[in-house]
Amino acid sequence: MSEFRCDPITGRQVIIAPQRSRRPIAALSGSESKREPGPAYEAGCPFCAGNEAMTPPELLALGSGGVSADERGWQVRVVPNRYPAVERTQERPRANDSASAGYGAHEVLVESPLHNRQPGSFPPGQMELVIEALHRRGEALAGDPKLHYLQFFRNYRSGAGASLEHPHSQIIALPFVPPLLRRELEQTRKLYLAGGGCPFCRLLEEECVLMERILALNESFSAFIPYAARSPFESWILPRRHGASFLGTGAEERAALAAILERVLRALAQALDDPPYNYYLHAAPLRSPPLPYYHWHIEIHPRVGINAGFEMGSGVYINEIVPEEAARFIREKGRDEDGRERQQDLLHPCAAQSPAGGES
Amino acid sequence: MSEFRCDPITGRQVIIAPQRSRRPIAALSGSESKREPGPAYEAGCPFCAGNEAMTPPELLALGSGGVSADERGWQVRVVPNRYPAVERTQERPRANDSASAGYGAHEVLVESPLHNRQPGSFPPGQMELVIEALHRRGEALAGDPKLHYLQFFRNYRSGAGASLEHPHSQIIALPFVPPLLRRELEQTRKLYLAGGGCPFCRLLEEECVLMERILALNESFSAFIPYAARSPFESWILPRRHGASFLGTGAEERAALAAILERVLRALAQALDDPPYNYYLHAAPLRSPPLPYYHWHIEIHPRVGINAGFEMGSGVYINEIVPEEAARFIREKGRDEDGRERQQDLLHPCAAQSPAGGES
Repeated sequence: MSEFRCDPITGRQVIIAPQRSRRPIAALSGSESKREPGPAYEAGCPFCAGNEAMTPPELLALGSGGVSADERGWQVRVVPNRYPAVERTQERPRANDSASAGYGAHEVLVESPLHNRQPGSFPPGQMELVIEALHRRGEALAGDPKLHYLQFFRNYRSGAGASLEHPHSQIIALPFVPPLLRRELEQTRKLYLAGGGCPFCRLLEEECVLMERILALNESFSAFIPYAARSPFESWILPRRHGASFLGTGAEERAALAAILERVLRALAQALDDPPYNYYLHAAPLRSPPLPYYHWHIEIHPRVGINAGFEMGSGVYINEIVPEEAARFIREKGRDEDGRERQQDLLHPCAAQSPAGGES
Repeated sequence: MSEFRCDPITGRQVIIAPQRSRRPIAALSGSESKREPGPAYEAGCPFCAGNEAMTPPELLALGSGGVSADERGWQVRVVPNRYPAVERTQERPRANDSASAGYGAHEVLVESPLHNRQPGSFPPGQMELVIEALHRRGEALAGDPKLHYLQFFRNYRSGAGASLEHPHSQIIALPFVPPLLRRELEQTRKLYLAGGGCPFCRLLEEECVLMERILALNESFSAFIPYAARSPFESWILPRRHGASFLGTGAEERAALAAILERVLRALAQALDDPPYNYYLHAAPLRSPPLPYYHWHIEIHPRVGINAGFEMGSGVYINEIVPEEAARFIREKGRDEDGRERQQDLLHPCAAQSPAGGES
């Protein structure tokens, strides 16, 4: 029997329809075959260390230990996208002009000097540098008063839209607040004004009492499969401290984010056989005052199944795996084999079965 | 240089970014290889003529010339989906209950007795039967007061989510109006109340004066690539006569719809090398009174490129082909080779370049 679920934050409607799944949950891996680890350096790859001349001049390099710009030695590097969707050299769009020049910034965050590393199997500290670079570029872009929103996103593998294999994520800064964010902000503001505080804070509380959809917790973040997940393994990472702006985070909070993001991506890759995925960050508009009703967060979408005519036409999603079962599956199959789970690591399945299991 | 465009009906925002496309327009075909015509009958296919016993009992058969139910002889056949997302045997969902039993109907419209036929290369009259069957099932489902919306959709090829190759489309009837429709209805109502009549009627008028995005016209329908197309070859088919309900159409109008839909699908297949695609119908809720602000219509999405993290996160789409150029490309490459273009057929490229070219 199927069940309608409505996302408490967005009002999005989902049909949870386990009877439609003709395959066991374990077979629900990505559509692409498992990736063979390739070489650490590709002569033609513009993002490989040593090929710095193949990109526009860098905007930022971290972990370089003081070498010159556009030379090897960096651990994380940010460059302008050579094929930008938007450009800062363009005219500022006029208000209420439906066709206006595409002002904005489009940057590539090269996540590693090595061609064959990916999030989930980064060496210690690497994801921290990625998050740090994102934060610094965000602060720089927020200084442009014509930019109003910063969309950070990651496409992993060609099945999720990545055109280059070298590990990289992207930043697109826009001169307007995009529709999905506008709706999320409006909806949460309404819920807040109706009483009950910040809807994200309430959601976090409920998930942590219930525990059945939680994937991982650490001192600052909670990762879980949402109640009305649009696809079987959609996963959210929410800061436990209220805050609408990612740019308002402290260094310690960002380190904890890096740890839980890396851990959740590793668990998904392990449990689902290295699937293609997308993730993105949702946050308040740039230079927004503190918002009592909104939490910045990350949404991860492993590409399992496909959004087809029904989803495209209606905006209603059909999810063939009950979110509670999907979370249990990831917790079980995504565990590190050596059994050494740290605080930001996946919950022990037992801990997640009873509220008494607490938060570590 | 890129350009922001805003859809006048939905307010959706699109970045038209031709400079991002590294490929010539002709190389923008689907991600799947061209289909080899397979056999007309597959022993294991539940939708092939002769295999009627493999489906639940049929709900409708057309073109059967009086044979018994669930026997061969039909040209178009509707059966319940064996793996339904929603079911009518379930409880009616309670109002305002976010988790409620998945009441609804999920039906498969088998479009041909032959396994290897597809829309765009149907024999004459076949698409008319498909549209007729959809209309009859719509009327039947509208008789259930618990159902409020009927979502008709088609997934073509596995790259667009089709799990069976045999030509078929689907109907999902829901006990609520889905979010995309609700937003479209709200937005067009607002535009209507602000003056200027039905926004769809206005759009049709503008497109027919401009002519540069038009693909095909016949006595009752207009097919064009919208001004703010989300992907290069997104195509809309709109009735030229105002009407919010597909169920309110007459037989003649439906025949004209079948003709233009078949023609546009053939042009897209020809120009884009048989790409996967989805299409769906948007219409007023079931049993809705006449709405002065809404037009029912069909939206077609050839799967060229992929919606990735940016689109998923922001709701803003990046389209690498200027819609006017995409329309010209389809008009040129999608023409029938024998040169016999009828009224519902693609416009001659010249006719579309100047408003003086008129409507045929």
